[in-house]
Amino acid sequence: MTQVSNKQILASGYITGNPKQTDMYLKSSTISLQLSEELASDAVLVKNLILSCDPYMRGTKRTDRNSLFYSFSPHSPIVGYGVCKVLESKHPKFKKGELVWGVTKWEEYSIITKTESLIKIEHTDVPISYYTGVLGMPGMTAYAGFYEVGVPKKGDYVFISSAFGAVGQLVGQLAKLMGCYVVGSAGSKYKVDILKSKFGFDEAFNYKEEQDLDATLKKYFHEGIDIYFDNVGGDMLEAALVNMRRRGRIVAAGMISQYELDEPQGIKNLVNIIYKQIKVDAFTVYDYYHLYPKFLDTILPYIREGKITYVEDIAKGLESGPAALEAMFTGKSAGKQVILVAHE
Amino acid sequence: MTQVSNKQILASGYITGNPKQTDMYLKSSTISLQLSEELASDAVLVKNLILSCDPYMRGTKRTDRNSLFYSFSPHSPIVGYGVCKVLESKHPKFKKGELVWGVTKWEEYSIITKTESLIKIEHTDVPISYYTGVLGMPGMTAYAGFYEVGVPKKGDYVFISSAFGAVGQLVGQLAKLMGCYVVGSAGSKYKVDILKSKFGFDEAFNYKEEQDLDATLKKYFHEGIDIYFDNVGGDMLEAALVNMRRRGRIVAAGMISQYELDEPQGIKNLVNIIYKQIKVDAFTVYDYYHLYPKFLDTILPYIREGKITYVEDIAKGLESGPAALEAMFTGKSAGKQVILVAHE
Repeated sequence: MTQVSNKQILASGYITGNPKQTDMYLKSSTISLQLSEELASDAVLVKNLILSCDPYMRGTKRTDRNSLFYSFSPHSPIVGYGVCKVLESKHPKFKKGELVWGVTKWEEYSIITKTESLIKIEHTDVPISYYTGVLGMPGMTAYAGFYEVGVPKKGDYVFISSAFGAVGQLVGQLAKLMGCYVVGSAGSKYKVDILKSKFGFDEAFNYKEEQDLDATLKKYFHEGIDIYFDNVGGDMLEAALVNMRRRGRIVAAGMISQYELDEPQGIKNLVNIIYKQIKVDAFTVYDYYHLYPKFLDTILPYIREGKITYVEDIAKGLESGPAALEAMFTGKSAGKQVILVAHE
Repeated sequence: MTQVSNKQILASGYITGNPKQTDMYLKSSTISLQLSEELASDAVLVKNLILSCDPYMRGTKRTDRNSLFYSFSPHSPIVGYGVCKVLESKHPKFKKGELVWGVTKWEEYSIITKTESLIKIEHTDVPISYYTGVLGMPGMTAYAGFYEVGVPKKGDYVFISSAFGAVGQLVGQLAKLMGCYVVGSAGSKYKVDILKSKFGFDEAFNYKEEQDLDATLKKYFHEGIDIYFDNVGGDMLEAALVNMRRRGRIVAAGMISQYELDEPQGIKNLVNIIYKQIKVDAFTVYDYYHLYPKFLDTILPYIREGKITYVEDIAKGLESGPAALEAMFTGKSAGKQVILVAHE
């Protein structure tokens, strides 16, 4: 069988915590562009077009039990979400030439044998990279977290931390479309400006410039917070707990401030959940994938009508992957971080 | 109008934290056993038969915003749940001679003008004191917390702290009836024995005798915990967070270990909710009162058939109220603490 060149990004070893460029390396391998007989009857051969950098792509300490996070396998390609073109398929749901999104590998061509996550892309009048973000897993996380877990009402007071992230920017816009008051926090003046000017947040602040987060939240939320969409945990969660309203909802999407600590920070204000009957739900988006068609029906018209804006930071070429992933973890990406591997 | 004697238990002053006997005093007052013209059109005059001691009856620091807890009013009667006989009624739903349960005052006779909480007692083949416990607000808390918030399945691993309390003992029995594995913690050997022998818990332990709660929970839950019904918070919550299974549910009914602290304890293991997609819901029972008829349909047959057992500690006479309330807070009550004011 004819072999073609297949560049790959591999993990150098086990990675603990946030990956750095130097934890990965590029290798040129070869692959046959045909599916062999021995492969499972639903295997799919794809060409990877877009790869996604997401905050869950950090190494788990191997002692963690039951952890959701990612385990990097030494000298194996990085695994992550992507948009792919089907070249060959044994799977009845996917045909040659179709576009899909789901879990793939950081390489030019992949044979996907675990096909459960793959979803066919039906609408290509929007950039296909959106299926790694606003129309993909982060978008579903925002949608399920805000509507299903947050249970918002018009007029609710909504606070979003890490609001410039792929999830946060969508949550804020969905909240504005519902008629909520929306404040976001982010880590630079650039991000704060875009939250207000482009995403329509009522207010936004740079948490790095605030001395007293409790006072900051009191300044923006005189009446308290109904929904806190938490991506960071730690000090921001402490401050939010004090400022929640009765029967508030904390949508616990992440605690990125805690993962790198040897011992996580104690949250002293947790007792407020009792005083104020608060729900804290670290939901999993996978429980809500049955809503994906409804999600698309909601979000696609908003995107086409310009009611939802989405900002990407597109790194060009598979080689740029390691730097792009590090940039996302260090807050340097100027939007949802993706890697453009091939145009078609 | 004829006045009769009306003994009352009054708060000596503002009470902060767990009330002590000395925070209350007995006074003999008088009352007219007729409803005057000026009273609201739904006022009810009742004779208090049973009064209830419940863990929410502790004084809030007056600086707390939005707090659920109780504010004692100096030189006013203690307010709490009770079972009462209607002597006079302007309310269309309640008639002279009927029994009701709901929020009343610690005195022989009360005029109730806030009647929203009153529910007519339809079934008197069980002890009427049960309507302050297993058939009243604590029972509804157990029922809503376990079924609606905990979302249990047969075979689930269930842990209940303060399992001997009015809520905990019912949660454990409901969980056993559903086919769950149930472990409870309590604060004395007597309570631990009753949990196992009378309430049918699979295991129970005295938390005061355990050195390492994480190890204790690992001993009883090899596979981890699906539902933690938390009444205590603090160290037990820390240990439970480490031992929860993926997608576990923490039913946050109370954090009694924290209320007396000047500064609440930091909960370091909260980040586990992200790693394991855990829901922590400090629900309010008042959101579930529409289920009260369904609750009675479930619980009453269990009680009549002896499938649910219920233990009360009955203090005799209104005068015994202050000591009974203190006993409940210091863990000395030998069952759900009630006060028998009058037989009929």
